[in-house]
Amino acid sequence: MKLVKNAAGRIVPNEVNGRKEVPFKGINEHKPFGYKAKPLIKTCIDYPLSGNKLVKNLKDALRKCGLKDGMTISTHHHLRNGDNLTNIIFDTIHSMGIKNVRWFPSASFSVHEHLIKYLEDGTIHHIEGSMNGPLGKYTSEGKMKGIGVLRSHGGRYQAVQDGEVHIDIAIIAAPTADAFGNSNGVTGKSASGLISFSLVDSEYADNVIVVTDNLIQFPCIPWQIQGNNVDYVVEIDSLGDTKKIVSGTTEITKSPDRLLIAEYVAQFIEESGIMKNGFSFQAGSGGTNLAFVLFLKDRMKAKGIKARFVRGGSTKYLVQLLEEGLTDYILDGQTFDLDGIRSMRENPNHINTSPFTSYNFHGKGNFASIVDVAVLGATEVDINFNANVVSHSDGYLLHGIGGWQNCLYSKCTILAVPSFRDRIPVIIDDVTTLCGPGELIDVIITERGIAINPKRKDLISIMKYSSLPIKSIEQIRDEVYSICGGIPTKPKLNKEKIVAIVKWVDGTILDSIFQVL
Amino acid sequence: MKLVKNAAGRIVPNEVNGRKEVPFKGINEHKPFGYKAKPLIKTCIDYPLSGNKLVKNLKDALRKCGLKDGMTISTHHHLRNGDNLTNIIFDTIHSMGIKNVRWFPSASFSVHEHLIKYLEDGTIHHIEGSMNGPLGKYTSEGKMKGIGVLRSHGGRYQAVQDGEVHIDIAIIAAPTADAFGNSNGVTGKSASGLISFSLVDSEYADNVIVVTDNLIQFPCIPWQIQGNNVDYVVEIDSLGDTKKIVSGTTEITKSPDRLLIAEYVAQFIEESGIMKNGFSFQAGSGGTNLAFVLFLKDRMKAKGIKARFVRGGSTKYLVQLLEEGLTDYILDGQTFDLDGIRSMRENPNHINTSPFTSYNFHGKGNFASIVDVAVLGATEVDINFNANVVSHSDGYLLHGIGGWQNCLYSKCTILAVPSFRDRIPVIIDDVTTLCGPGELIDVIITERGIAINPKRKDLISIMKYSSLPIKSIEQIRDEVYSICGGIPTKPKLNKEKIVAIVKWVDGTILDSIFQVL
Repeated sequence: MKLVKNAAGRIVPNEVNGRKEVPFKGINEHKPFGYKAKPLIKTCIDYPLSGNKLVKNLKDALRKCGLKDGMTISTHHHLRNGDNLTNIIFDTIHSMGIKNVRWFPSASFSVHEHLIKYLEDGTIHHIEGSMNGPLGKYTSEGKMKGIGVLRSHGGRYQAVQDGEVHIDIAIIAAPTADAFGNSNGVTGKSASGLISFSLVDSEYADNVIVVTDNLIQFPCIPWQIQGNNVDYVVEIDSLGDTKKIVSGTTEITKSPDRLLIAEYVAQFIEESGIMKNGFSFQAGSGGTNLAFVLFLKDRMKAKGIKARFVRGGSTKYLVQLLEEGLTDYILDGQTFDLDGIRSMRENPNHINTSPFTSYNFHGKGNFASIVDVAVLGATEVDINFNANVVSHSDGYLLHGIGGWQNCLYSKCTILAVPSFRDRIPVIIDDVTTLCGPGELIDVIITERGIAINPKRKDLISIMKYSSLPIKSIEQIRDEVYSICGGIPTKPKLNKEKIVAIVKWVDGTILDSIFQVL
Repeated sequence: MKLVKNAAGRIVPNEVNGRKEVPFKGINEHKPFGYKAKPLIKTCIDYPLSGNKLVKNLKDALRKCGLKDGMTISTHHHLRNGDNLTNIIFDTIHSMGIKNVRWFPSASFSVHEHLIKYLEDGTIHHIEGSMNGPLGKYTSEGKMKGIGVLRSHGGRYQAVQDGEVHIDIAIIAAPTADAFGNSNGVTGKSASGLISFSLVDSEYADNVIVVTDNLIQFPCIPWQIQGNNVDYVVEIDSLGDTKKIVSGTTEITKSPDRLLIAEYVAQFIEESGIMKNGFSFQAGSGGTNLAFVLFLKDRMKAKGIKARFVRGGSTKYLVQLLEEGLTDYILDGQTFDLDGIRSMRENPNHINTSPFTSYNFHGKGNFASIVDVAVLGATEVDINFNANVVSHSDGYLLHGIGGWQNCLYSKCTILAVPSFRDRIPVIIDDVTTLCGPGELIDVIITERGIAINPKRKDLISIMKYSSLPIKSIEQIRDEVYSICGGIPTKPKLNKEKIVAIVKWVDGTILDSIFQVL
């Protein structure tokens, strides 16, 4: 392994976990060459004609899949912090004496702290996937055997499609399924909404196991996952803690500063001319992002404006837009609350999307770049408009990328962030971890002022006479530094030890995450 | 090329159009070995970020796709006999001076007689796909340069998926589309219903062109074809003759003999115990098949029986079942009339399926074998229960296979056929062309009697005391021969010249079609 400086000026390895990697070459500079991964041809002869693929339990299914040491096992974060299944899977794998598994989740949550013992005892070699909370902290401390690989939702699809990650066994938690393997997340006691983060796994993994706690008669409608891609179905009592799988309702921020940011965002979108009939936007799930939707909605109603589509993660606030006729469609990637699930289940204009349609950069286009404006968050933003979403200023890896990188391709990307958190500046000189190059980030909106990327001369010109507090990013940084007591201290990192890397949407390495000392 | 006798005892070539082929080995005897076809990895860099893939016309699109001599061009039969687009495509290809195209339609109709001149002048080398009517006759006369290849709907998916057929350019007629390429067939003036016969083309072709006469703003919902698989979109005035694309309504047979057959079918399904709560059936689109649905419906209502699902092609008769609560779902592959289209557009329980979910034999199971009873037609049936659907007793190739072969895998396959047509026996000693091995065909129902395959001892036993006229197949044959004036004359065929071959669902060659003298 050699360390090299990539096109973003970041130090990255040219090899990760024994695999050659390509350092980031710049936005739209890396063109893939070659063919997609090619799954084995299967035949109906080897599957029950009755369509009944039920096996007696998870262990039996794993055995039939030929589980062995060193395999790659994928899971998905549809059950979020209510996920019991993943913990059961690794309890089972451990009980079978298997070692050195590469775990390839779409994301992990606090509930997966349970798995640290399997990282310790060698059951799991390393994790490739978002690590929210305890597993991120564990990784940051340099304790994981391999190097963590962080990818966006689109990057995960791309990596599997392109054959960078070969999945031996995919295990899909299905809130509802039939014995053929058709599955969805919109019905059943463990309903989580959409389960399309597992789409790519179902398409490319050698073996696919569906696990459900709500087995129904064929056909399971809708089939977000198609049984024709499934090998085995396992029925269990409970996938997890329903209260933690999905929020009852999602809460708007009550912080006056955050509400001010949200108002600024809505005002910016209107004044910049983005808010017009047939426009589209994407909102994240944070409290500020939710609040901006409400403010924007008021402005849309006042002007008689209707959106063509809005992008989820959906919440009751997006659902209200749809139900009140303020948008033709919700194009949704996941649902964050019960209203989102209900709407996806019942409203034919609440449309399921997948990382393939929305985010895969190695496709014939994707939806992300068609969106007029995306309003996102960040843990840090620097004066070059570069942003970080995975680590904190103390160097700890604590969040996943989600669809964040993919959404940067929208026609106008706004980061709505407080200028500081807990007296630690958010607007700084240089991000701890680079997740999104400033080139793709158009506007930074804080409670203290709004900075427009100098590249966006068009926006600067349109907003020239706005009442909004438009400032340079340096000015905001200076104000924040002075409030927080000067230039923030850099985290203490062991630059000799890379604990994880951040991939860009094209599969190249954008940045490294180092051990925290 | 060598001729060999396959496991069904039919003479078939071991090479077709220069490609090595596997002769039929018996039902469930051929296991594929290897990997699926692998499409090139694409990148968003090469597609417009706006999502607008419109090009000025078809010629421009074909040029951008790099059209050249000898390429494989695929089209689809969604527009049926109202299809103008395919004729326009080949007018365009001809005007570009291109030669030796392999045309890979899902089916051709009378309207495509227009293309005979392009078979004559070398624009088209040969056709792989169903040839209904004039092109079949042309082929039977030995005039086509290459050998025709007939596949079932599932076999077409399998062939592309397995890399047997590599499509250079797929052209998809889309009754509605957006500029990104998302497409459907349920809306627009040329609405044809489902367009999923082009699914496999969109997934595997090197280049995909969507042609529409109803371009709408992104997103086109539903997206039966996903824009992420599409390269170019072309807008034209009209895809075809709307009256011929889909029937206004589908007519039930008025023939007393056919009505009697339909009544027998319904009675058989009830008395055999197949008709019970949660059962499923598939009905074809012929007049007899439509009538049987009405008779079965009466019996279901009388007994208070509800189906779990019924399979289309859908017509108003299946739609009535759904709307009257006699089935939970229609799982549909195509719509045959306006009621079918309306229902698919409006009823969330009228579900789109595709050759992948329904019929692909090289998948992890498919829907066809889950169906309790399939009621199908045939041009000929022999005393070994073998059946023919593509040629007539005079040897002429005049029909496609459709989903017929795939449906034979249902739990009970009934062929509902008249015992003779135009004084030519349908029940005979040996089929002119073998399309379905008798091993998979359970019951033959004619106006003259019902024959149960001796293999199905269970059905024979259940039906022992039925009032239905159960006879041996030989008895029915004898009666028919005596009515029609003895043993029918064999067609005069040139056994030295194979004009087309019939593939089995696993890609092996089941039979040959010879030149008619």
